[in-house]
Amino acid sequence: MRIIIIGGVAAGTKAAAKAHRVDPNNEIIIYQDEAEVSYSACGLPYVISGVIDDEKKIVIRQPEDFAKEGIKVFTRHRVTNIDTKRQQLTVRNLKNDADEVVDYDRLILATGACPIVPNVEGITLEGVLTLRNISDLGRFKTLLNMIQPKKAVIIGAGYIGLELAEAFHERSIKTTIVEKAARILPRFDPEMAQPVHDHLLENQVELILGDGLAELHGENGRVIAIKTESGKMIPGDLVVIAIGVKPNVELAKAAGIELGKTGAIAVDSRMETRTPGIFAAGDCCETINRITDKPIWMPLGDIANLQGRVAGENVAGGNVHFPGVFGTAIFKTFKLTVAITGLSEQSAQKSGFETVSIVMTGTDRARYYPGRQEFSLKLIADRKDGRLLGAQAVGSGNVDKMIDIVATALLGKLTCADLENADLAYSPPFSPVLSTIIVAAGILKSKMVADSFYRMTESFSGASRSISG
Amino acid sequence: MRIIIIGGVAAGTKAAAKAHRVDPNNEIIIYQDEAEVSYSACGLPYVISGVIDDEKKIVIRQPEDFAKEGIKVFTRHRVTNIDTKRQQLTVRNLKNDADEVVDYDRLILATGACPIVPNVEGITLEGVLTLRNISDLGRFKTLLNMIQPKKAVIIGAGYIGLELAEAFHERSIKTTIVEKAARILPRFDPEMAQPVHDHLLENQVELILGDGLAELHGENGRVIAIKTESGKMIPGDLVVIAIGVKPNVELAKAAGIELGKTGAIAVDSRMETRTPGIFAAGDCCETINRITDKPIWMPLGDIANLQGRVAGENVAGGNVHFPGVFGTAIFKTFKLTVAITGLSEQSAQKSGFETVSIVMTGTDRARYYPGRQEFSLKLIADRKDGRLLGAQAVGSGNVDKMIDIVATALLGKLTCADLENADLAYSPPFSPVLSTIIVAAGILKSKMVADSFYRMTESFSGASRSISG
Repeated sequence: MRIIIIGGVAAGTKAAAKAHRVDPNNEIIIYQDEAEVSYSACGLPYVISGVIDDEKKIVIRQPEDFAKEGIKVFTRHRVTNIDTKRQQLTVRNLKNDADEVVDYDRLILATGACPIVPNVEGITLEGVLTLRNISDLGRFKTLLNMIQPKKAVIIGAGYIGLELAEAFHERSIKTTIVEKAARILPRFDPEMAQPVHDHLLENQVELILGDGLAELHGENGRVIAIKTESGKMIPGDLVVIAIGVKPNVELAKAAGIELGKTGAIAVDSRMETRTPGIFAAGDCCETINRITDKPIWMPLGDIANLQGRVAGENVAGGNVHFPGVFGTAIFKTFKLTVAITGLSEQSAQKSGFETVSIVMTGTDRARYYPGRQEFSLKLIADRKDGRLLGAQAVGSGNVDKMIDIVATALLGKLTCADLENADLAYSPPFSPVLSTIIVAAGILKSKMVADSFYRMTESFSGASRSISG
Repeated sequence: MRIIIIGGVAAGTKAAAKAHRVDPNNEIIIYQDEAEVSYSACGLPYVISGVIDDEKKIVIRQPEDFAKEGIKVFTRHRVTNIDTKRQQLTVRNLKNDADEVVDYDRLILATGACPIVPNVEGITLEGVLTLRNISDLGRFKTLLNMIQPKKAVIIGAGYIGLELAEAFHERSIKTTIVEKAARILPRFDPEMAQPVHDHLLENQVELILGDGLAELHGENGRVIAIKTESGKMIPGDLVVIAIGVKPNVELAKAAGIELGKTGAIAVDSRMETRTPGIFAAGDCCETINRITDKPIWMPLGDIANLQGRVAGENVAGGNVHFPGVFGTAIFKTFKLTVAITGLSEQSAQKSGFETVSIVMTGTDRARYYPGRQEFSLKLIADRKDGRLLGAQAVGSGNVDKMIDIVATALLGKLTCADLENADLAYSPPFSPVLSTIIVAAGILKSKMVADSFYRMTESFSGASRSISG
């Protein structure tokens, strides 16, 4: 059986490796249009900041490594057409532009996502970049080395934008972030996004909110400023477009493979598309939000790996399921770690949940133990039964641990009453005697009890009024 | 109502505070025989090492702080008798040895635990110490300052022994650990205890295993050496007895309050003893192992706080439950963090589980991200259904996070198949793209499938043999 995988970054290479382990007798081919396969796109901002001193380090495996396992990797090969009836692909060798038609038995689409780039005046000027692929890195490095930019404008205050703000700060590039939404980090509740906002300002990042990119101005073909929709002119010799990404679905769409509500490729829990024998994994496909049970598009590297593993096993004849996601995400900007799992309170309410929540300051060590770091933690539960809906944490210290505990609690459908008696690891260098998570869960439970008492009293007084009235 | 709490360290003070919050109209009295209340015993090794520069820092609250809330704290007051019929206590003021009889309505026993001290020759020599209470600290400090010991012998290779080995190393005191068991850390599986063993040797700690303390030798009333049961003489001007602790149950026992199978006070899930109106919490009482459903004695500071909270709420008229523990514990010795949750594979098998397990090397960051630390992780599941039974981790990096994820997974009764698709927080500075926990859970699941295939094949071949034979 010939299994062809289109795309060779995270989901594609993971799927190939898994499919090979499940059944080494299949022929497995990866087509990848970039020159590199199997790299960590999440590492890109740290190459730019210099934290990672050599971009080669973020390339996990070489085509030769796959060849040793009998997996054929064709880099700089772009699949331009899928004929699902004949089970054939048209593949263009980008080195010589020669097209070839290749038969397949089964297919995995791992075509990823690409930055959204607005079609505005000046968008093609030199110095206007996106950061998504390893090939973008070359453009960044050339620019950073040749022009030595003094002033950057980042369009978009998402994870990449904020990670790059720190990277530019490390390189002494003054930075302005322009965000069309009224605030940064819309997936977070306002009170949790605020400390990040403040921290950016403390680090001399200029924030322009509620304003979008209107056009870019250049001199000699090189960007010198941007103009916002409200008419502000912001000088910059480096402009990064980081307003978001979109799934690469053109190929699937043209082949008649069904897209889902989110615009990404629809798959079942086996990662199979609506076209039998064709699977999809990673940033090009949608998944299920395990709290709302609704489709969600969550283009993240770890999810791509998890999905690639499932698609790889199933394409080779297995029968495993990917259960969906909780929307867990984490990033670092300057000295803050910012993380979320599950629903924010705003999104929970939009999804129809009546919520109860607590925001508190937590710490990662006993209060007398040196080196203690603080963070702010928000925990959200369903007011009806106390089931946890999500958490957000912002600060220093082990924000990642707090979020992973809640992510695991979500997996177990735990309530705040369950979590209140969690048996977590305590010793002064690792936690306060009661973990912040336990304290937060306890307060949340008390609030629920207090609320239900209040509502009970309310309904009693209502009843007595109706009797006396 | 007068609520009296006997013991004022962790469980006692937590219970007092909770009882006061639930109903501020009760009279709440704490009797504590030490001079200090509300301190962190877990911080003691770090005061000795000097990591915590002032012992006052580990005292969380003063009697005056409790007084402000209307909680009366009597330090240096020892309860010498409980008359459960008359609901009276005999209390001795240790300052003047005067006895007083005091009525109570409800009682919480939070009498803690004390070190086991073997009755061997020389045990009362100067320089022979235990480390359990804040009052022990004074003796340690006097000794460290006056004698400036050059050579310590620690009897017992448990958490306290290993924490102290590091503390002594910090103070350039050459240390020998003598342990009666054949290996250190018997709660851990042998292959997880081994790296700790090796690490101690690397740090010039001498280990004598399978040998116990026979007697202590002194000169001028001061210890100079110990002799082991096998006859080894080990010089030392500081000897720490750290072979374990036992619950302080004499008072309860004399009052006819029932003890459990573990020898600690028996309580129900409301933390009430078999004598109605008398509760117990913390190191003096036993609890339930949530995996085996059997009684277990787990004298740890965080559990004491959790139990104190429950006892405090219930003593004041509430009705909450403490569900038991998973036996989660963590400590640090030199550069290693050592942690466990749930059952070890050995104890799981002793409890009748058929187990499947995996030991693997994990890391706390993407492999290209600087500052990456490694650890060894063992994950254990029930071979029957894949339900997780426990985990152990040893190393640098975020061992605490790994263990807390598994502790939360145990709380949710998750299987390795559940955990394999956990949605944990990934970004290069915080985790490899697939958390070590996820990878371990995936391997464990594969092993189960492979095993059941193997066993299926076995039973088929067995069947065919019986047919042909």
